[in-house]
Amino acid sequence: MNDKLKIAQRLDEFGVDYIEAGNPGSNPKDLEFFRDIRSLKLRNAKLIAFGSTRKPERKAGEDRNLQALLKVDTPAVAIFGKSWDFHVTDILKTTLEENLNMIRDTLSYLKERGKEVVFDAEHFFDGYRADPDYAMQCLRVAEEAGADWLVLCDTNGGALPWDVENIVKEAVRQFTVPIGIHCHNDGGMAVANSVVAVLNGALQVQGTVNGYGERCGNANLCTVIPNLQLKCGFPCIPDEQMENLSAVSRYVSELANQVPDEREPYVGRCAFAHKGGMHIDAILKDPLSFEHISPHTVGNERRILMSEVSGRSTILKRIQEVTPWVCKESKETQYLMEELKRLEQEGYQFEGAESSFDLLVRRALGKDIKFFYVKDFRVLCEEHWQDDYSASAIIKVRVDGVEEVMAAEGDGPVNALDKALRKALKVFYPQLDRMRLTDYKVRVLDTGKATAAKVRVHIESTDGEKVWGTVGVSNNIIEASWAALIDSIEYFLYQHHERRPLQEIPAAEGEIGRG
Amino acid sequence: MNDKLKIAQRLDEFGVDYIEAGNPGSNPKDLEFFRDIRSLKLRNAKLIAFGSTRKPERKAGEDRNLQALLKVDTPAVAIFGKSWDFHVTDILKTTLEENLNMIRDTLSYLKERGKEVVFDAEHFFDGYRADPDYAMQCLRVAEEAGADWLVLCDTNGGALPWDVENIVKEAVRQFTVPIGIHCHNDGGMAVANSVVAVLNGALQVQGTVNGYGERCGNANLCTVIPNLQLKCGFPCIPDEQMENLSAVSRYVSELANQVPDEREPYVGRCAFAHKGGMHIDAILKDPLSFEHISPHTVGNERRILMSEVSGRSTILKRIQEVTPWVCKESKETQYLMEELKRLEQEGYQFEGAESSFDLLVRRALGKDIKFFYVKDFRVLCEEHWQDDYSASAIIKVRVDGVEEVMAAEGDGPVNALDKALRKALKVFYPQLDRMRLTDYKVRVLDTGKATAAKVRVHIESTDGEKVWGTVGVSNNIIEASWAALIDSIEYFLYQHHERRPLQEIPAAEGEIGRG
Repeated sequence: MNDKLKIAQRLDEFGVDYIEAGNPGSNPKDLEFFRDIRSLKLRNAKLIAFGSTRKPERKAGEDRNLQALLKVDTPAVAIFGKSWDFHVTDILKTTLEENLNMIRDTLSYLKERGKEVVFDAEHFFDGYRADPDYAMQCLRVAEEAGADWLVLCDTNGGALPWDVENIVKEAVRQFTVPIGIHCHNDGGMAVANSVVAVLNGALQVQGTVNGYGERCGNANLCTVIPNLQLKCGFPCIPDEQMENLSAVSRYVSELANQVPDEREPYVGRCAFAHKGGMHIDAILKDPLSFEHISPHTVGNERRILMSEVSGRSTILKRIQEVTPWVCKESKETQYLMEELKRLEQEGYQFEGAESSFDLLVRRALGKDIKFFYVKDFRVLCEEHWQDDYSASAIIKVRVDGVEEVMAAEGDGPVNALDKALRKALKVFYPQLDRMRLTDYKVRVLDTGKATAAKVRVHIESTDGEKVWGTVGVSNNIIEASWAALIDSIEYFLYQHHERRPLQEIPAAEGEIGRG
Repeated sequence: MNDKLKIAQRLDEFGVDYIEAGNPGSNPKDLEFFRDIRSLKLRNAKLIAFGSTRKPERKAGEDRNLQALLKVDTPAVAIFGKSWDFHVTDILKTTLEENLNMIRDTLSYLKERGKEVVFDAEHFFDGYRADPDYAMQCLRVAEEAGADWLVLCDTNGGALPWDVENIVKEAVRQFTVPIGIHCHNDGGMAVANSVVAVLNGALQVQGTVNGYGERCGNANLCTVIPNLQLKCGFPCIPDEQMENLSAVSRYVSELANQVPDEREPYVGRCAFAHKGGMHIDAILKDPLSFEHISPHTVGNERRILMSEVSGRSTILKRIQEVTPWVCKESKETQYLMEELKRLEQEGYQFEGAESSFDLLVRRALGKDIKFFYVKDFRVLCEEHWQDDYSASAIIKVRVDGVEEVMAAEGDGPVNALDKALRKALKVFYPQLDRMRLTDYKVRVLDTGKATAAKVRVHIESTDGEKVWGTVGVSNNIIEASWAALIDSIEYFLYQHHERRPLQEIPAAEGEIGRG
């Protein structure tokens, strides 16, 4: 599934009310997305496509972008339009009157076609400062044309909380249609402004997971939601979903291939990390002493940067799947806790790569099966290696004492190695034909070290039914890929445990029938 | 000079009023710092050492930490003390009365010794919520003992702007000693809370450059200062220093070895970056249309991000930097538009990699200089290559007919190749010593193709002054990295155009003086 579909599905499960998912008029890829998402069946969220008011001096019915908007067939649409006189006259180069017509025509046109319409009043706060009457007139026209929401946008992100407070108050006073807020973070105020707006009567907050967005980003929903719901008593998502907040944040950063911000409020890896003797002493006496909320509320965890003691029960659950008799106090649990901590410090992350952790458990408990040994590998990359391929690999594996040497060419060193390994192993395990890699992601961990940086490789595989994830970390991208690849194949072999078809193994080796 | 001294000097030049530079009682390294800094002669800033109130049931004169504080001989000291009853009784495990004595004794003791004393009332906002009378009593005692500043600290970082507003107002009303504010960012509100405090009468803001600090960080001075000075009219630093804000931010992140936050308000690399045709058209008509302030005010710069959607006028601007006579209708513009579209479809993205696009323009217009030719390269990776390194590379370059063969080992194939290439080129261009890669990112484009997927590599480099980005795309990660690397070096050589010192080139080749 495409990343954007995955994110939409996750946000829907998380319980957001609307998902604004693209501008079909300006981006053909978005058209595709809206087509594919129909098969998903969202349970909570309404899907929104967005576009702008019709072009000046045109008819709404002839506007290509509006046609695209209707074509994707979402229950709701968001229309952004000008509300700052300067933007109308100097950027759009039309008259103030025509801009009002554009708002009116566009919204009426969409309302007639049965859409829920969100009107995003672009640059509303700057517009209000320049000419409050005109800014309000834009909202008035939108209301008359049937807008279901009037959203005040701080498009340039420079508004300050007291401006937002006063202006939102005024809009709430003047209109019966519910007011929304859309903030950017250019003054570092996007979260504060969003929260202040809600406290003064706004009923919709537009924002993004982790605040991703142009320039300094949009309002960060991972901060806005807990601020509103946990501290101000405004329900945003179902209560039971709040503990998924950190997971949603990480999921989206992973798919967006963005390094997660460790210091991100509520959900960052360091948000509840304590160090320094005095602080830790206090935290051990009472976590309230240095935590504004309990990390578990938002699915994050406390990290004591000296001696950590958390997450044991989660780990225990996975251990017990392999060896049901191991308990919380067993030395195996202790050992695996330590091992996990060590690996995480090295850059491993087992979220989405639980299969690698399961294999780790098996190995630690001596419950692993050695399906194969890799005796040796070598990869060679040359400039202009061949027409089609740029790398080659040689590999030697051994299964039950039988060795097999294979070579393969590939698109790059990892691909060559992957192909050589599979070719070699299929001799022994033809069921590997059913296994396929479906996803391959590379994350550079310490980007500042440039080409010597550590990388984490995350691989997703499938046998046509199940999907599993594995992970590898190394300074060398080939080794990191290799570790994830080996785990993936081993995990598959645990699931498809049939012994290899013996007749295919060369009889000469005298290995038939053994182990 | 030690990094901390360098930062102190830079902050002093920048014009901050106080530099709180360490806790000599708890950290012996800080003792050393305070000794060394005397030779610096700060011109604007007062130096502050900090420590806590004396221990319960002790005399101030016998408190080891206070002795250390006096020993470092700064004009001012900051003393943090409890103001939340819960912390006094449950964490400090003493009586509410004794805590007041601790504040009184400690401050009197330091005032008698001629210090300017800043009293940091820890957890003041939580304390005020729990018992406003006791919290205020702590401030009262501090005032009576001679405190020069009463600083309200949101130590857990969870306060919301309206709490801060009300409580600061109340403190300003009750005390004649000036009030300060110290915020943490656990609710994403540190900047908003600091600014709100000042608007309600606080006269000192404690914060850090880039918001560095425990958990989610402290109030980010790089956001607080321009918000206060440019938008609210509160002078913080000399006006002429404002344009050094971005440089100060980068300097400190460089010394702190932190990857700069691209999205940081005002000073981040993306804070004034624009993409998307409509936004860029508007920006070119009037920057005010999508910028809350002019980037030059804070020493940052506008970036028009290259992408297919950014339209012809953006591309034209970049072309004209190389060949001013090319116009919008020229066939060169047409060709480059097509080329850009083609490359973007292939997976290239020139946002943040504008230098690669500039080189593309040069090549297309025949305005490029061939600084070097790579004749050949070969990379070998083996399992367990050596103890330290896992890959090796051999490379042959030619400059003005002189060939140089070099080899290097590295952490992975890309690193090995990078090192070999630089070694070889430094023979001809010793100025490459000044160039350094600062960021290396890998993005797998079509993840579904697994290890055969196309990857985009993005490299960021610096010569210590400027930062530039380049990009490479290939199915082979080595080739993608290679392309970005070559572009980065070429771009550097365009900027640092001095000819190579000829005497270092082997005379035997008969190439001296050519090219």
